[in-house]
Amino acid sequence: MASTTSQRRSFWTWGLESEEPTDAQRRQHAGELSRRFGVEVVAPPIPHAEDLELRAPRVKAPASIASFCRTDNYERALHSYSADDRGPAVLGIFPNPPDIVAHPATEEELEAVLDWCDSNSYIAIPFGGGSSIVRGVTPPEDSDVVVTIDMDRFDRVLEVDDTSRAARIQAGVFGPALEDQLRPHGFTLRHFPQSFAGSTLGGWIATRSAGHYATNQTHIDEFVESVRMLTPTGWFESRRLPGGGAGIDPNRLVIGSEGILGIITEAWMRIQARPRFRATAGVTFDSWEAGYEATRHIVQSKLWPANLRILDPQLACDSAGLDGKQTLLIIGFESAEINQDWNIRTAVKIAREFGGHIDDEDMLIDDGTGNPTGRVGAVGAWRNAFIDVGGGLTAGLGVVSGTFETAVTWDQWPEFDAHVRSEVSKTLKEVCGDGTLSCRFTHVYTDGPAPYYNYTGAYRSGGYEEQQAAIKQSASDAIIRAGGTITHHHAVGKTHRPWYDQERPDLFATAIKAAKKALDPNGILNPGVLVDP
Amino acid sequence: MASTTSQRRSFWTWGLESEEPTDAQRRQHAGELSRRFGVEVVAPPIPHAEDLELRAPRVKAPASIASFCRTDNYERALHSYSADDRGPAVLGIFPNPPDIVAHPATEEELEAVLDWCDSNSYIAIPFGGGSSIVRGVTPPEDSDVVVTIDMDRFDRVLEVDDTSRAARIQAGVFGPALEDQLRPHGFTLRHFPQSFAGSTLGGWIATRSAGHYATNQTHIDEFVESVRMLTPTGWFESRRLPGGGAGIDPNRLVIGSEGILGIITEAWMRIQARPRFRATAGVTFDSWEAGYEATRHIVQSKLWPANLRILDPQLACDSAGLDGKQTLLIIGFESAEINQDWNIRTAVKIAREFGGHIDDEDMLIDDGTGNPTGRVGAVGAWRNAFIDVGGGLTAGLGVVSGTFETAVTWDQWPEFDAHVRSEVSKTLKEVCGDGTLSCRFTHVYTDGPAPYYNYTGAYRSGGYEEQQAAIKQSASDAIIRAGGTITHHHAVGKTHRPWYDQERPDLFATAIKAAKKALDPNGILNPGVLVDP
Repeated sequence: MASTTSQRRSFWTWGLESEEPTDAQRRQHAGELSRRFGVEVVAPPIPHAEDLELRAPRVKAPASIASFCRTDNYERALHSYSADDRGPAVLGIFPNPPDIVAHPATEEELEAVLDWCDSNSYIAIPFGGGSSIVRGVTPPEDSDVVVTIDMDRFDRVLEVDDTSRAARIQAGVFGPALEDQLRPHGFTLRHFPQSFAGSTLGGWIATRSAGHYATNQTHIDEFVESVRMLTPTGWFESRRLPGGGAGIDPNRLVIGSEGILGIITEAWMRIQARPRFRATAGVTFDSWEAGYEATRHIVQSKLWPANLRILDPQLACDSAGLDGKQTLLIIGFESAEINQDWNIRTAVKIAREFGGHIDDEDMLIDDGTGNPTGRVGAVGAWRNAFIDVGGGLTAGLGVVSGTFETAVTWDQWPEFDAHVRSEVSKTLKEVCGDGTLSCRFTHVYTDGPAPYYNYTGAYRSGGYEEQQAAIKQSASDAIIRAGGTITHHHAVGKTHRPWYDQERPDLFATAIKAAKKALDPNGILNPGVLVDP
Repeated sequence: MASTTSQRRSFWTWGLESEEPTDAQRRQHAGELSRRFGVEVVAPPIPHAEDLELRAPRVKAPASIASFCRTDNYERALHSYSADDRGPAVLGIFPNPPDIVAHPATEEELEAVLDWCDSNSYIAIPFGGGSSIVRGVTPPEDSDVVVTIDMDRFDRVLEVDDTSRAARIQAGVFGPALEDQLRPHGFTLRHFPQSFAGSTLGGWIATRSAGHYATNQTHIDEFVESVRMLTPTGWFESRRLPGGGAGIDPNRLVIGSEGILGIITEAWMRIQARPRFRATAGVTFDSWEAGYEATRHIVQSKLWPANLRILDPQLACDSAGLDGKQTLLIIGFESAEINQDWNIRTAVKIAREFGGHIDDEDMLIDDGTGNPTGRVGAVGAWRNAFIDVGGGLTAGLGVVSGTFETAVTWDQWPEFDAHVRSEVSKTLKEVCGDGTLSCRFTHVYTDGPAPYYNYTGAYRSGGYEEQQAAIKQSASDAIIRAGGTITHHHAVGKTHRPWYDQERPDLFATAIKAAKKALDPNGILNPGVLVDP
């Protein structure tokens, strides 16, 4: 329950306390921004938990659950925001903290706290890593008592089934700890969302996280063999099955339910033998269009590369040092059993047929001996850019940047991309004076890509919140208008609700509301997320 | 609406009227059985629709829908049973026909008939091909007025999107007609359940049909891009998307709903370029155990063969002429773009590592030139056996035979197989005196196989219905007790309900009942299927 200080999560920025920058580092960074933009940028001092003045808890945990309930400033501040609305945290502003943060360690403790919430109609918010960037775990503003239920003590791999390649895993385990426990068995989940270090299995399942593989089975949906979830009405547990056709799939009601139906406690997950064979190629194209056409043909050939990530000229320039005109397509294959030489050559052949450039010697093939692949040249530069997601240095300095992501069918894609770029660029000009926008595909399907856009506004001090909101609005409107989904893998939460409500069938919301009412009759679980009561 | 006589479905047996045997053929077959079993087997005469005496319709269609509603004997008899309870049909017994059979041709007509049912609380049964073998479209016995809504006039491919490889297809189209319409575009759905000729797209979606591919994406679930469904409360239509993570997947509430939530009218389906390259190998093993262990390692290597079907020694003997001790594993790859030579050699290499026998020259590889593969030797014999599913010759003669299918994880599989064989063999002895039982895998997952069992009882005249029921009970009990699913792809309907109710989470049924109540408040749609009111 009391994690060691070095492993504690930062209550005001992304990541661990041990990864937080110092005040000096932040002041230095502010100075650099001041010089770069010619305006005075001031770094507010880092807040300290003991100095915060939080609203007093509106309720006291009864003795039956008090041993695992916390009400200290650090705990309540940490659970006050999701990653996308944590902006005020660096200023020490926490107007709406949960009243209690529970850390149950057993199913009995979880039952006890959920029962207590349910019988008192207190709001209960299931909490994994808190990495939601859609206000998925932010306490509602208009509610009475809020109890956040942090699952971090459900952190173990309970069983490994070597024969079926499956493991029974508790929902609160973070990515690295999960991999640490599978590694001795020779297995890996190989599910690496960008939030990997700061998110949990339960969070991935609740939000339909998209994972490591760029093609074929990659959403967490496809790796869930069975799931166990506590609802206010009781336990919901599906049978372990490799596949099936017995009515509507019960797992699929849990996957993506974002904490509104119950609290996931564990799941049987399909796991992978650790890859030994790898092959990688970075193929360049003279245009964005040529690059994505080649990508489409590769995925439609059903070679199923593990990596098929394309970077537009802007991003290929920024992240991989290309010339600003070329597009970079990174193709990667991996296998525990089979040399991937044929696979990479076959994929590169298709890429070349559609205008791709790569010398034969730049296809890097690891035949199981451990030769490095994908960590040199353009591909390696990109990999390092992907892993750096720290925000502690810029928090509160007014730098406008962010991401949005979607998926859309190939037939709509060119007009979709043009429309989104045009709308977002216009808004960047309006609210920031200028800015840059780039795109990559994180995942690719036979019937369409999952594009991921990054934007950075030109620096304009003041109005940070409004600038961000205007860009989010513009991007989201454009996505929905042009036929995409409001989210391919960032979830809905509360932030995406206005566009989600346009996207999903009305009668689907009707059905889900009815299902929620049946499982959570008092409506205590994560209100405002996905559906209204 | 009035299909030509030659294309009309038989109202008393599987298939088309044009495929029905004659009375003479049936008498001859009965004579053969008499001689083989030493008992007198009598073939009842084929019934004729005009001779049937059916209960008079209990209601009359109003003028607004009368033009597409039928009440003649043929139509009402045809829609009186599903494929698994049609036994009495050959005797001309139809105690519970629907009162009206509607054949709407447009969404407006469909709305009109469903509105009429809903406002009068008449039961409405969505009907595709009627090939259900779980009483999925049989009118309930205890109900008042029943209207069967046959979707056969929703039979067109409406749009083909070459770029995304997707097509908008009406739900009532039968397999062959669907393929006929895709073929000129160079595409195929490549979804070939055993019922292909007698089932429809809407039926496949409603029942989570499993398709052509033995590994990787094969359930219809994975090919649905979006779906449109009429409920008593209105239209439910999901957005066309290649993938997504916006909350619970709305498509997954429709897929597997077996007609209890609405009537599927059309879907955007992911389609395939027609395969040009093929490679096939029939590998033999000295034992069943060696064969399925090799199968497991091939699927876990993620080569994703299109075919990976293993036949146990009994079936390999009966269907492919092997010696009764050997197991046959048929491995097949196909591709529209890429020669599959490497793939088949790699899979065969794994098969050999686990004890498989095949000469190199018996790997049949079609390099796109049209050389025949898979239609000679053991593999070809099996293919022909698979396609023959006619039952008209034996209907009503008392021959006890059937199939059951499931899926189970690999760790449970050996004990599962032993338990199921032991229980079913015992029951075959008890009720038929003796019998045979064989098994193949229809689909294989990294975490487990989908076994399919065939049984035939020794001939014992009289008591056919009780014999079948005892075997079904024994097999289903064994499957559920040993950790399998009551159905991998035959659906739940009414027949599988007792075991489905043990398999699915109770709270899932609670949630689905609530969702049904919200979409179908009067409970008119297919009552008794999946859940009780």
